[in-house]
Amino acid sequence: MTLRKINFVTGNAKKLQEVKEILKGFEVTNVDVDLNEYQGEPEFIAQKKCQEAVEAVKGPVLVEDTSLCFNAMGGLPGPYIKWFLTNLKPDGLYNMLTGFADKTAYAQCIFAYTEGLGKPIHVFAGKCPGQIVAPRGDTSFGWDPCFQPDGFEETFGEMDKDVKNEISHRSKALDLLKEYFEKN
Amino acid sequence: MTLRKINFVTGNAKKLQEVKEILKGFEVTNVDVDLNEYQGEPEFIAQKKCQEAVEAVKGPVLVEDTSLCFNAMGGLPGPYIKWFLTNLKPDGLYNMLTGFADKTAYAQCIFAYTEGLGKPIHVFAGKCPGQIVAPRGDTSFGWDPCFQPDGFEETFGEMDKDVKNEISHRSKALDLLKEYFEKN
Repeated sequence: MTLRKINFVTGNAKKLQEVKEILKGFEVTNVDVDLNEYQGEPEFIAQKKCQEAVEAVKGPVLVEDTSLCFNAMGGLPGPYIKWFLTNLKPDGLYNMLTGFADKTAYAQCIFAYTEGLGKPIHVFAGKCPGQIVAPRGDTSFGWDPCFQPDGFEETFGEMDKDVKNEISHRSKALDLLKEYFEKN
Repeated sequence: MTLRKINFVTGNAKKLQEVKEILKGFEVTNVDVDLNEYQGEPEFIAQKKCQEAVEAVKGPVLVEDTSLCFNAMGGLPGPYIKWFLTNLKPDGLYNMLTGFADKTAYAQCIFAYTEGLGKPIHVFAGKCPGQIVAPRGDTSFGWDPCFQPDGFEETFGEMDKDVKNEISHRSKALDLLKEYFEKN
């Protein structure tokens, strides 16, 4: 049996690494295509991204979009989190909620996959509920230090990578994707 | 002399009204084209919008994109303000800055205009500096009640429409556009 080959379109080496670790048993290769980023609901954004990717690659493509959603803000910054993280760092993200009693949030990861041009786009969404806290731990991966998942005393930034990979929004979405691959 | 006809692509009746009031002497008609909204810098977003609009209309088109930029957040929510306004209302926008000492902000309006397919896209940006305050005044037009322009004691929501139309980000951008039309 040959390995299923997946073109994961990302420019983010850390995300590629996470995907490879979770999708063991698949040949995950990286394609760096310059994709537009749309505004809108996270599912919509992932679908548009996948559509653009398949038009460029003309083969099976996987794309990903991650949101960090504050419940006090009705799910925002959501898909715009990367702009807020760039400008505010984890400290500033935490500050954004100073005026709100509700500090709960969820991390959401959406993978969109299609086998090729004209084929349907499948969407796999994983959520990890938690809360926004004053940053603690390793600051090398995005907003990890200010997100503490429910049921844990540690932030994603403090957590062992194996533990994080088991409970994260990304792993939940990848589990759904793996399940789909196993059936199709 | 015939009036210059401008196809203003917007689905927002209030914006159309403002543009008509300021661009007296031009025949401003409204075209409602469903345009994608991109993520990125405001100028980039307006250019992409204009490009899509001209591909649909195949004639002279004017598009607009408005940002509300908090200096404490490096210019965000910026072009994503409409999502934040929808979810948080002016009260919530004000709350977003509770944890930040700097309440200054600027409203930015960008018009992008092109004469037709393949023609250059011209960008006209107008800014109005001010600060984010607890909402006061008429709540019928977006974030107006929580934005107080520099040099005034009133918010955009409390201000006489004629005064607002003279100092607003939108009028400044339209002045640049008018100037361009007069020379070209």
